[in-house]
Amino acid sequence: MSDSFFHPVSGFDLPRFAGVPTFMRLPYVPPEHERFGDVDIGLIGVPWDSGTTNRPGPRHGPRQLRDASTMIRAQHQASGIRPFEAVNCADLGDVGPNPADIIDSMTRITAFYDRIKQAGITPLTAGGDHLTSLPVLRALAKDAPVGMVHFDSHTDLFHSYFGGTMYTHGTPFRRAVEEGLLDPKRVVQIGIRGTMYDSEDRDFARAEGIRLIEIEEFHDRGVADVMAEAREIAGDGATYVSYDIDFVDPTFAPGTGTPEVGGPNSYQALQVVRELAGLTIVGADMVEVSPPFDPSGGTAFLGVSIMFELLCVMVGGPAQG
Amino acid sequence: MSDSFFHPVSGFDLPRFAGVPTFMRLPYVPPEHERFGDVDIGLIGVPWDSGTTNRPGPRHGPRQLRDASTMIRAQHQASGIRPFEAVNCADLGDVGPNPADIIDSMTRITAFYDRIKQAGITPLTAGGDHLTSLPVLRALAKDAPVGMVHFDSHTDLFHSYFGGTMYTHGTPFRRAVEEGLLDPKRVVQIGIRGTMYDSEDRDFARAEGIRLIEIEEFHDRGVADVMAEAREIAGDGATYVSYDIDFVDPTFAPGTGTPEVGGPNSYQALQVVRELAGLTIVGADMVEVSPPFDPSGGTAFLGVSIMFELLCVMVGGPAQG
Amino acid sequence: MSDSFFHPVSGFDLPRFAGVPTFMRLPYVPPEHERFGDVDIGLIGVPWDSGTTNRPGPRHGPRQLRDASTMIRAQHQASGIRPFEAVNCADLGDVGPNPADIIDSMTRITAFYDRIKQAGITPLTAGGDHLTSLPVLRALAKDAPVGMVHFDSHTDLFHSYFGGTMYTHGTPFRRAVEEGLLDPKRVVQIGIRGTMYDSEDRDFARAEGIRLIEIEEFHDRGVADVMAEAREIAGDGATYVSYDIDFVDPTFAPGTGTPEVGGPNSYQALQVVRELAGLTIVGADMVEVSPPFDPSGGTAFLGVSIMFELLCVMVGGPAQG
Amino acid sequence: MSDSFFHPVSGFDLPRFAGVPTFMRLPYVPPEHERFGDVDIGLIGVPWDSGTTNRPGPRHGPRQLRDASTMIRAQHQASGIRPFEAVNCADLGDVGPNPADIIDSMTRITAFYDRIKQAGITPLTAGGDHLTSLPVLRALAKDAPVGMVHFDSHTDLFHSYFGGTMYTHGTPFRRAVEEGLLDPKRVVQIGIRGTMYDSEDRDFARAEGIRLIEIEEFHDRGVADVMAEAREIAGDGATYVSYDIDFVDPTFAPGTGTPEVGGPNSYQALQVVRELAGLTIVGADMVEVSPPFDPSGGTAFLGVSIMFELLCVMVGGPAQG
Amino acid sequence: MSDSFFHPVSGFDLPRFAGVPTFMRLPYVPPEHERFGDVDIGLIGVPWDSGTTNRPGPRHGPRQLRDASTMIRAQHQASGIRPFEAVNCADLGDVGPNPADIIDSMTRITAFYDRIKQAGITPLTAGGDHLTSLPVLRALAKDAPVGMVHFDSHTDLFHSYFGGTMYTHGTPFRRAVEEGLLDPKRVVQIGIRGTMYDSEDRDFARAEGIRLIEIEEFHDRGVADVMAEAREIAGDGATYVSYDIDFVDPTFAPGTGTPEVGGPNSYQALQVVRELAGLTIVGADMVEVSPPFDPSGGTAFLGVSIMFELLCVMVGGPAQG
Amino acid sequence: MSDSFFHPVSGFDLPRFAGVPTFMRLPYVPPEHERFGDVDIGLIGVPWDSGTTNRPGPRHGPRQLRDASTMIRAQHQASGIRPFEAVNCADLGDVGPNPADIIDSMTRITAFYDRIKQAGITPLTAGGDHLTSLPVLRALAKDAPVGMVHFDSHTDLFHSYFGGTMYTHGTPFRRAVEEGLLDPKRVVQIGIRGTMYDSEDRDFARAEGIRLIEIEEFHDRGVADVMAEAREIAGDGATYVSYDIDFVDPTFAPGTGTPEVGGPNSYQALQVVRELAGLTIVGADMVEVSPPFDPSGGTAFLGVSIMFELLCVMVGGPAQG
Repeated sequence: MSDSFFHPVSGFDLPRFAGVPTFMRLPYVPPEHERFGDVDIGLIGVPWDSGTTNRPGPRHGPRQLRDASTMIRAQHQASGIRPFEAVNCADLGDVGPNPADIIDSMTRITAFYDRIKQAGITPLTAGGDHLTSLPVLRALAKDAPVGMVHFDSHTDLFHSYFGGTMYTHGTPFRRAVEEGLLDPKRVVQIGIRGTMYDSEDRDFARAEGIRLIEIEEFHDRGVADVMAEAREIAGDGATYVSYDIDFVDPTFAPGTGTPEVGGPNSYQALQVVRELAGLTIVGADMVEVSPPFDPSGGTAFLGVSIMFELLCVMVGGPAQG
Repeated sequence: MSDSFFHPVSGFDLPRFAGVPTFMRLPYVPPEHERFGDVDIGLIGVPWDSGTTNRPGPRHGPRQLRDASTMIRAQHQASGIRPFEAVNCADLGDVGPNPADIIDSMTRITAFYDRIKQAGITPLTAGGDHLTSLPVLRALAKDAPVGMVHFDSHTDLFHSYFGGTMYTHGTPFRRAVEEGLLDPKRVVQIGIRGTMYDSEDRDFARAEGIRLIEIEEFHDRGVADVMAEAREIAGDGATYVSYDIDFVDPTFAPGTGTPEVGGPNSYQALQVVRELAGLTIVGADMVEVSPPFDPSGGTAFLGVSIMFELLCVMVGGPAQG
Repeated sequence: MSDSFFHPVSGFDLPRFAGVPTFMRLPYVPPEHERFGDVDIGLIGVPWDSGTTNRPGPRHGPRQLRDASTMIRAQHQASGIRPFEAVNCADLGDVGPNPADIIDSMTRITAFYDRIKQAGITPLTAGGDHLTSLPVLRALAKDAPVGMVHFDSHTDLFHSYFGGTMYTHGTPFRRAVEEGLLDPKRVVQIGIRGTMYDSEDRDFARAEGIRLIEIEEFHDRGVADVMAEAREIAGDGATYVSYDIDFVDPTFAPGTGTPEVGGPNSYQALQVVRELAGLTIVGADMVEVSPPFDPSGGTAFLGVSIMFELLCVMVGGPAQG
Repeated sequence: MSDSFFHPVSGFDLPRFAGVPTFMRLPYVPPEHERFGDVDIGLIGVPWDSGTTNRPGPRHGPRQLRDASTMIRAQHQASGIRPFEAVNCADLGDVGPNPADIIDSMTRITAFYDRIKQAGITPLTAGGDHLTSLPVLRALAKDAPVGMVHFDSHTDLFHSYFGGTMYTHGTPFRRAVEEGLLDPKRVVQIGIRGTMYDSEDRDFARAEGIRLIEIEEFHDRGVADVMAEAREIAGDGATYVSYDIDFVDPTFAPGTGTPEVGGPNSYQALQVVRELAGLTIVGADMVEVSPPFDPSGGTAFLGVSIMFELLCVMVGGPAQG
Repeated sequence: MSDSFFHPVSGFDLPRFAGVPTFMRLPYVPPEHERFGDVDIGLIGVPWDSGTTNRPGPRHGPRQLRDASTMIRAQHQASGIRPFEAVNCADLGDVGPNPADIIDSMTRITAFYDRIKQAGITPLTAGGDHLTSLPVLRALAKDAPVGMVHFDSHTDLFHSYFGGTMYTHGTPFRRAVEEGLLDPKRVVQIGIRGTMYDSEDRDFARAEGIRLIEIEEFHDRGVADVMAEAREIAGDGATYVSYDIDFVDPTFAPGTGTPEVGGPNSYQALQVVRELAGLTIVGADMVEVSPPFDPSGGTAFLGVSIMFELLCVMVGGPAQG
Repeated sequence: MSDSFFHPVSGFDLPRFAGVPTFMRLPYVPPEHERFGDVDIGLIGVPWDSGTTNRPGPRHGPRQLRDASTMIRAQHQASGIRPFEAVNCADLGDVGPNPADIIDSMTRITAFYDRIKQAGITPLTAGGDHLTSLPVLRALAKDAPVGMVHFDSHTDLFHSYFGGTMYTHGTPFRRAVEEGLLDPKRVVQIGIRGTMYDSEDRDFARAEGIRLIEIEEFHDRGVADVMAEAREIAGDGATYVSYDIDFVDPTFAPGTGTPEVGGPNSYQALQVVRELAGLTIVGADMVEVSPPFDPSGGTAFLGVSIMFELLCVMVGGPAQG
């Protein structure tokens, strides 16, 4: 049971449009806060998009996600889980990037997550572009490679861009495999689609044993069947969940930089997370939410709705869909 | 057969973007008009959102719905019904609320609908937030409780908000049951979803015998099966249909104040209404359309498309889907 | 194999947001260009909306489609087809209309397509409103009527508007049948829906033997079954493909002038094209994309994604979905 | 004194967002209405943009102007004039154009204004693109040429477009002079600016004696001085006032099709009208308001604010600024 | 000199888009915080719009203003004042209103400001609609009436709306005068404009000795001259500054509910505040910022820029323009 | 006199919305084009924003500027200059940056401009963020320092950001002075305003002899007086003109990343350029146009209107205002 200090403000007490917007109206507990050591799950912003090769914007993601998150209430409708009562949740603030220096930014992010890990906190990250996952994994998988369930329309397994640039949002998991942060046999990528430069990323996946489930297979088999396989691939070991909002069809999530049409709808976007119940989740992220391309804010609201689903499976109980 | 006075202007005669926008280009027949007594179905605006606990805006709904409704033509595509020829339809104008006084506004609305009822007109209302349904039911169900088919992502059955406030858009049907306006055994709520404060509303529903069909059940069973049950619950008696636009997934209907992701798509949004054919509908409403959150106007167009479906089932013939 | 002159610029060489935006980053080869004679498939803009009876805007379609098309990469994800390597593709520029004279504009368009046809180029057109298809067919079907697979929510088979106006975006295929450009027995219209003025267009279709597949039938039977019938209707003969973006549900494609709710989603929007593989396509168009009603640009991106699918079936290989 | 039938609805009685939106909440009195003969000043919509050579949209102007006009109250702040009490004002509805036939549309418009003129009503028109002024003048100046005060960033005096097209929104006043509808010696054009094709229009103006006041002169001399000259040019004779919203700087009025930067601000936009007091105004128009390019609606609100100023000078009393 | 605890986060240390957005990146010090007693100037949000008679939205103002305020840096460009170093500034959080009960909300607001006043904190409020000023003044002027410099396009001096409703955003200063909170002889209202219902508010002003400076006088005399008079009227006594964002021309500040065209530009909007230097300011507010009508966020940014100017004159030194 | 090859397409021949959008409808003449050597003035895009410290977006600037530039016609209204006839102008395409590597990007940009310089072409650049000016100056001022007239609300003279990062859009001119590319005594910065971190940039300016004209001085003295001084500072030597769109008030130019309120209006924005006539301009840029923050496109249109003014003073004749 959580400590009442960690309970969010209720919309019955203070309307949802009021107050300084922390993630899900949780207390703001940055590392220097006295209660930092008591946090079980920490929500963290990584406002960063220097790895973006096309349309920037995810650096503004955490703030918009915090704003939209004040619409989230206390209880999961389908499972009845009340995550904020189950464990101590808090908003740990943002990791400050250096917008003009990719390497420096990655160093800062890894340092922050090292501290999170040492404090025994499980991080739920709001990106940031997908390169964010790499410095996070450098902290979380420092000691041993982890498995990963990866929702995305892209593999993000490319070797490099623009004539040899190694760190972009199209390369994080190539690096993560090369650095021994991911166990490729325990990695599954779901929702892959869109026109392709070439097959270099898929060749790498095949060679390493990463399982790709393309969108046609996803639509043909359905959520339950695909996710059963995903759970099997991830297995019992430590598993990271990386959720790129462009997994969802861009009509449901226009606020992103590299949309690909023909993806899952918003109901499926939630269901795939519910099906993660039972995994050993050591961290999760919601990345590529880009407010400048989301004038109505719907993408951010979907993003935090998914983050709430992630939180519910992270607190341990299986969410019944 | 309707009187030609009540026929809408054709887009072949006058382009759809031209003319003063009444609902569906029908004649404007306020209560003081000489033909008021000849109206069978009256379209009425209730531009009001004082019951809104979060994001206001539905007070602007009727005007935007009127504007979008000029795109509606004369004949239902699937059933062939031509409602404006079947019965006398008219735009009865708006009920003027008092934006700064909830009780006064409810009194004004009930008074207007008393007059409608006395004239033998069946009302099709464009809200307004969901509190609108309460003063409408006070007129329509004055003599005896009615059944209700209620499309929504929320139950609107809460006891009170903000420490005892009884009249908000989250409480109308709690009040309606308490006041004997609804027969809870003949009430079905479809599409319920989203994070919850607590289960107080559901406990009330269970205690009173109101049937809740949550979104998971809706998606699992499908429209036809769910609606067959809904028809059975409503039965042969007088039935009110209340359609909150947030029943529909917010990607299809972003223009609303309390969206919940994972809902039905626009085709299902129409189909559920077609399945109401055969019920004894004594009134219907389309509420919570909020133009400030609908920059492209798509929500209003979906709203009036649903209103046209409601109109077609109200004129009596079963719409074949 | 295509000539490297005709290869698009890669996003790995030049970021997708850079450069003068031609269709799919192809070389710009207007008729006066020295390589014009080597083009196999030509992408052409027809920025024109004088036939629009309601909300204008498609005249701005080609430019926005070109802009969005820079997001398209070289290879089809599901089939592996690399169309730009298979045949010589190029951006042939726009046909300049006369915005204030419908007849003059049609003459200009037909003259341009006569030249295209004489050069042996298969055109893939970006409209423009749907009247665009008529002057295009006057060139392509000059010698013999063609079949047509037509995706739309409207039949565009009306006789006239506004008291006798023969050339609007609601009449092109009535004219095309009357002029002997289309073989009605080889025409299928898919996705028809929305409120109707009357049944005059459907009566004409029935009398001529045009097959209409309304949206209810489409949703009930599914893409594969419907498209199998469509292929059968079109048969082996020369076939034109006309794709009105309003075929797709307006939530997925809000940027259009005459939306009708309840349509296919974006995945179905792509799948129907993939199912055209094997037909003898002599030309195709994507029409009614209207940027003023598409603030986020999502409609244009869906439009070019569909154009890429069209291109892949036009280069001949069957796209495996 | 006006008849109380012609008084607008007060926002104290019915909130401004409520009710069917007629111009300035005036009664709707189309020609067939029994009180038509009692109208002094008629507000008329001409939803038409077939003369637009670049970005269409003004066909949607009258509806958006009506919507915004519900914000206008009863009394002029500076002069104290209460126009709706001074004379009988009414919304006469829209003239229905034929969107696909320019000549037919002009005939319809002139016929409508013939009727207006015969009824002794002074028209205040909401366009529509600037070609609208031509068929209006054909009715109003049928018997004798009128003078004109013309606010615009363009002269609209070109001979033709696109190789000989005579009727576009760039040619109305060339035609009006040629047809003897305007007395060029009594015409003044104010605010002219923007890049030019060539000087053909200015050459015509000079040859005919039309006075052009370019924006530099306007900014140098100021409103009072420029308008004193304008009043002198128009003199005592019958004068038409034509106000193209693109006279105003596009930051203040983005909703228009052919903006030119560097224009007057909104205060100057009102002041120039106040300085028309004392002229013999036989008609006025507000044209080129284009809602698709005005997402926030500010242009329409400025447009109706200017229309209210026009109305105040039309009722006769000089508005003291 | 301020305590370093109260210094805002620098954009050189943490980019401006990062971090939980408090007002001007100041520490969040709600009343229960241990440093509350050390605050000199408190920035407070009142997210409330129940007094709005037309277009709601200001309840969302404080959050958007906080977001935009992260763009504000440490030093005033013209005067060199560094307010956050001069005195202890903090974000005191929001007062939670009851969105469905006006009287309850006013009670809550006054109670909060009583506490502020007792703590010796000078409040700088971000509204909320203009009714907000009334409950604030009930706390600040409890002991003696204050003077007021009021920037607005409306007087907000009406007696009542909608048949007797006393508390709306059009009536706060009528109530404040009646309740003895304002000394009318020391009140000046600047920028008044727009169409009027009638002159009832002005008659009241005249009778009470409130000075109205209408927009024409403002534009004729200029900022310096007008503000010299304003300073003289306010005199040496305790003075409240109330700044309605609709004082500014709606092109510069579209995000508001009751715009009136023809107002000051953004430079004048700042200059009028700079000219307040030297007054004894006991509180100030920025009200009527309405995010739903401000899609680009420019109004909020102007609003916080003005709040920074207010802060600089509140810390005491005269800002040299 | 220019060669007709270099004449833009007329809107009388091809409507402005038609055609592939090059800058001002000029021919596209990349360095490999056979006519490259004949170009006098080259319009170049630098789609890059890696130096942006706050809100990214200018990488999309060149494309939107090209789109808006199709509205520009052939002749300057006030001066009568026809720049495209005076000298050979062309669109030279974009310099491809490396979005994930600042140093690599700067190298690419300088290389491109070296080539431009060697060909004797005077560049008119469309950025890109303000860091763009540095690699451009490295080419243009390689041999000798140049003077500069700099329109901006910021000095861009900071030493570094984020703990030592030397290359951001806040540091280009500090670097340029350090590298000997600018002669500080011949540099004038006009329009400086907005809240400040500190005075470090101004201290540097003062020490180096750079003249700063803050916005208050600008508004007090007026365009003519300020620009006379600016011309004197720049003198007869080679001068670069750098125009940051945030010089203009953000209401007129919202599409930018670091707006500061209270700036010049659009007329002044043009006038300051006209006053540059007579200077020896060796290059000019328009930077910081950021489409994601410019939903209506007005900023880009203002940007290209200013570019046209720059072009007119670059072709040599003095533009009479």
